[in-house]
Parts: sequence; C-alpha cells; structure tokens
Amino acid sequence: MHAITIPEPGGPEALVWDEVPDPVPGEGEVLVEVVASAVNRADILQRQGFYNPPPGASPYPGLECSGTIAALGPGVSGWAVGDQVCALLAGGGYAEKVAVPAGQLLPAPEGVDLKHAAALPEVVCTVWSNVFMVAHLRPGETLLVHGGSSGIGTMAIQLAKAVGAKVAVTAGTKEKLDRCAELGADVLINYREQDFVAEIQQATEGAGADVILDNMGAKYLDRNVQALAVNGRLAIIGMQGGAKGELNIGTLLGKRAAISATSLRARPLEEKAAIVAAVREHVWPLLAGGHVRPVVDRELPMAEAAEAHRLVESSGHIGKVLLITS
Amino acid sequence: MHAITIPEPGGPEALVWDEVPDPVPGEGEVLVEVVASAVNRADILQRQGFYNPPPGASPYPGLECSGTIAALGPGVSGWAVGDQVCALLAGGGYAEKVAVPAGQLLPAPEGVDLKHAAALPEVVCTVWSNVFMVAHLRPGETLLVHGGSSGIGTMAIQLAKAVGAKVAVTAGTKEKLDRCAELGADVLINYREQDFVAEIQQATEGAGADVILDNMGAKYLDRNVQALAVNGRLAIIGMQGGAKGELNIGTLLGKRAAISATSLRARPLEEKAAIVAAVREHVWPLLAGGHVRPVVDRELPMAEAAEAHRLVESSGHIGKVLLITS
Repeated sequence: MHAITIPEPGGPEALVWDEVPDPVPGEGEVLVEVVASAVNRADILQRQGFYNPPPGASPYPGLECSGTIAALGPGVSGWAVGDQVCALLAGGGYAEKVAVPAGQLLPAPEGVDLKHAAALPEVVCTVWSNVFMVAHLRPGETLLVHGGSSGIGTMAIQLAKAVGAKVAVTAGTKEKLDRCAELGADVLINYREQDFVAEIQQATEGAGADVILDNMGAKYLDRNVQALAVNGRLAIIGMQGGAKGELNIGTLLGKRAAISATSLRARPLEEKAAIVAAVREHVWPLLAGGHVRPVVDRELPMAEAAEAHRLVESSGHIGKVLLITS
Repeated sequence: MHAITIPEPGGPEALVWDEVPDPVPGEGEVLVEVVASAVNRADILQRQGFYNPPPGASPYPGLECSGTIAALGPGVSGWAVGDQVCALLAGGGYAEKVAVPAGQLLPAPEGVDLKHAAALPEVVCTVWSNVFMVAHLRPGETLLVHGGSSGIGTMAIQLAKAVGAKVAVTAGTKEKLDRCAELGADVLINYREQDFVAEIQQATEGAGADVILDNMGAKYLDRNVQALAVNGRLAIIGMQGGAKGELNIGTLLGKRAAISATSLRARPLEEKAAIVAAVREHVWPLLAGGHVRPVVDRELPMAEAAEAHRLVESSGHIGKVLLITS
C-alpha cells in the first residue's frame, strides 16, 4: 500500500507519500481500507519530531480515518468485512490501509458521507471525554471553547448546544466567529481585540464559565482560572501556548474549581474503548438526527498531506481538513 | 453567654474570652449548647485578620463543635431539644452557644465521647468531600497525605485504610510518623530528610500516587504533579506553602491528571448539607464500628484558646486540639 511516511522530521515537505508494507491486523484488530483521514495538530508535532507514536502504534501519522473493513483479525466479533466505519487511531491514518483495535471502531453514522466520517472520531472522542466525561458539563451551564472554529471547537459548540448548555467561543477573525455563531455559539469573543475574561464575565452576569475547553495551556492558564465560575472545571487538551504557567491556587481554591489535562492518543486500549462506547451511545444518535454534523473545511488528496499541514499550521481553516486516498 | 472574641486581629493574645449576646436560631437552624470546639488552621488565619467569616456567619472563630441541642428555630424537623450532636460551622464554635443550620448537624456518634465528637466534623467533611467525593479514591489505589499527623491527616489515613486504599504520609518528626503508622499508614516519609517524590515512586514501583491530599499549595505544586500516577488527582485544601506556583501542564497532560482546590467554609448551605449527609451515610458507620476514631492531642479550657493556638502554630500537636467550655 501507500502511506505518508516521515523519513526525517521537519517542515511539511517531510511528509512523503511512499510505498510501504500492508499492515496486518493482530488479535482483536480489524484492517480498514481507508477512504479518508483528517489532520490533527498532533500530526504536525509528530512530523516535527516532537510527538513520537506510542509503543506499538503505526509509525505513520493520522489519528482518525473512515473506510471499509477489509479483513478481521483473530477474536473480533460484532464487525464484518465490508462494514463502513470510522475509527479512532493511535497512528497510521495517513495510509491506504490501517489496522485498528475493534474497540476503537464506530459505524459510519447515518446521514454522513463516508469521507466526512473521517472528521469525527478524534474531535467527538476528545470533546465527549473532556467536556462531558471529565468536566461533566450540564444543561444550563456555560461552556467556553477556545479556538471555536477548529475541528474540536466546531464539535464542542454543537455537542454543548445539543445538551442545552450556553456556549461562548474565542476565535481570531470575524469570519471564524460567524461560523461559530451558525453552529449555535451564543457568545463570540475575538481574542485579538477583546479580553476573554471580561467578555465571559459580562456574558454570565459575573458568574464565569462552568467549563472551559482549552488548547492553549500555559499562555491562558491564569486567565482561564480567572474566567471560571464557582465549581468551574478547566479541561486542557493542548499546549499551543506553552507547557509551564503560573497557577494561582488561591483563586482556584476560592472558586472550588478544578483543572484537568488529558490527551487521547496515549490512553490504554480499554480507556479508548470506553470513550468510543460512550460516544456511540450519546453522540451517534445526535448525528443520525442531524443535530450535530462534521464540519469540513476542505478535502485534499492524501498524497498532498504537506499542503494540508501548511493550511492547518497557518490556521486558515474552519473545522477539519480531510485527506482522501483516491 | 461567653465567646472567644477578636477585638483586634493579631497574635494568640488577640483571642479574648468575653461576654456576648446569645445567638438566636433562625429559620432552619438549631441552637447548640457547646461542650467542645476544636482548633483549625483557618481559625488562626481569622485571628490574624486574613480570613473573614463568610456573610451571615458568626463573627467568632470555630468551625466545628459538639454539644446538646438547646432550642429549635422555625422549620426544623428531625432533631429535638436534648439531642447530643456535633456540627460543621461557618464560625462561632469558640462559644458557649452557637446557632447551626440543621443540615450541618450530625448525631454524636456511638462510642465516641461527646467532647471528642467536636474533633470530627471539619476533618471528616473535608477528607470525605475531597478524597472521596471529588478525587474518588478507590480500593487498591494509593493516597499520599501531606501532614499525616494533623487532624485532617489522621482522619485521612483512617478513612483511606477503611476503604482498602494504600496510604503514604509525610510528616516532620519520627514521633509523628510513628503515630501515623499506628493509624495504619503504609509508607512513612520524613519531609525534612526525604524527597517525597522519590519515596512515593519507590513505594509504588514507579506508578506514583493516585490521589494526593495537599495542604501546602504552591510550595509542593510541582512536586505533587511529579508524584501523581497516570489518571492521578491532586486535591489541594490549604496553602501553607503559598498561593502561586508554577504548574507543568505538560506533565499533568502526560498523566491525564487533575487538580482540584476546595474549601469547606465558603460552600453554600446545600453543598455543606450534601457533604454532611454523605458523611453520615459513609463515615458514621465506621465510627460506630470502631474502625475510625477522632485523634485528640489534648483538651484545653476554651478561655485558654490563645494557648491552643500557640500549640497549633508550633505544629507541636498530633491530631486535634479541643477547647472545652466548662
């Protein structure tokens, strides 16, 4: 098969579409013939040499895909060759075929184009596990989403609205904020022109955000804690603004607030399977009902993954950038 | 009645045993004739002028007491004059009488001297709400307790052992660590001589602590995060080592760990009542069965509260220091 390889870490040109051996599905795995994968920021870190695949994972980038089951490994039940699926991956999505633990498979959702289903696993699992399973966002509460127009952000807006929460977002352009508003965001904050702490306080009559989904890490840590409500929960899923920041424990304690930080890729199989099962139970009906949909910026041939990385690195996109195998 | 008043914030001598008006129980409150109160570090901060009582609370210090119900305010059911009780207070325990919301009352536990019951509410509610309700310590997990010989620490050791967890403690003297061992602590760390990160790693075969109960705040923040296990939870309940510290979000994220910070006193009535109800359900049977007991360092007359504060400020005590009204 062909896959995007990384012979040497570096810029987008480090991504090379090359011929490689087919993966073989092991115990409890299935082989998926990939129709599409999608770009995540972690792929860029991997390309740069800063984020090695976890032990046992494919060496190729790509944390999600959609496609058709081509073969079943030993001990797999509940799935059949020919099933249309999407999958959460520990790597290897940028390829024509990938072996996936069966617990990380989801049926391609009704009403969603199979290619577009590749835009779902990583964002849906990340948002559901952090905003709902860890931070327990409840109806009537306020969620602040940083990077509201990202793949994660566009899904967080839709899922939070679907459960009856109020949603505030930050983004860097009016076009991005307009798109967030179309998806249901109630409070639009241009982080280039406005202070999100002041804006969230104003929008909540001084209460603050009950849950914050953050991809900035250190750069926003102090202001995120300031922006939290009493009993608020800050869920950190990225460190685009650095890893080490000053935490004001006094402010956190005064609010009886909490901070969590997670990543999906490094979780053991059983935790991924539990998240995938929860997503199938809670999010898949929302997709089938048309209440939630993948937000796709554009589709590029997988061999042009370098171009897709350039686009994501420039933050010029809204939603997900897909890589199509053929 | 008499109460300990604080005419001017300051050292221990700022505490003055004086005649003051009797409190009157309001809607949903009972009047307790106090037999004993106990010293908490928050009382020292209040005496120093750094921790004002929340709105509506008694101006006198004292976050817990035991005694006998002397009168019922309007709208109270389930309690009767003459009942022996202990209570979580927002203040006013250093007095001959105190008015308490009924939701913060607990029956004096079987098998515990009524005076000693004053040692229970604050530590039991703090430990239960943080270690179990927030951090969800589970059987087989490892709890690290800083200040293992404190009132909080001695209760945390006993409750964690009662549910089948492994317990590590830090303390500053061999005498204190010996007392922790008697209460069931499995791993004893002298923080003056040992690095608790290295010790907890060694004691858990490199896994780290699943839950840490911390009273030091900033001073221990970075090392606490280092000492956490994957999926670990750091519960901060004090800032004896300062309020602002550097947080390594990268380490936290790599472990999918979480940090919470809480205080009991500022919680609204319904949250306190929920904690008290949980404590009555889960901890009171352990007290009745003799599996958990209050650890009392000594009893002093309430009029000598200044001496009790000196003792607690010097950290010369193990467990709780009681103040007895007569």
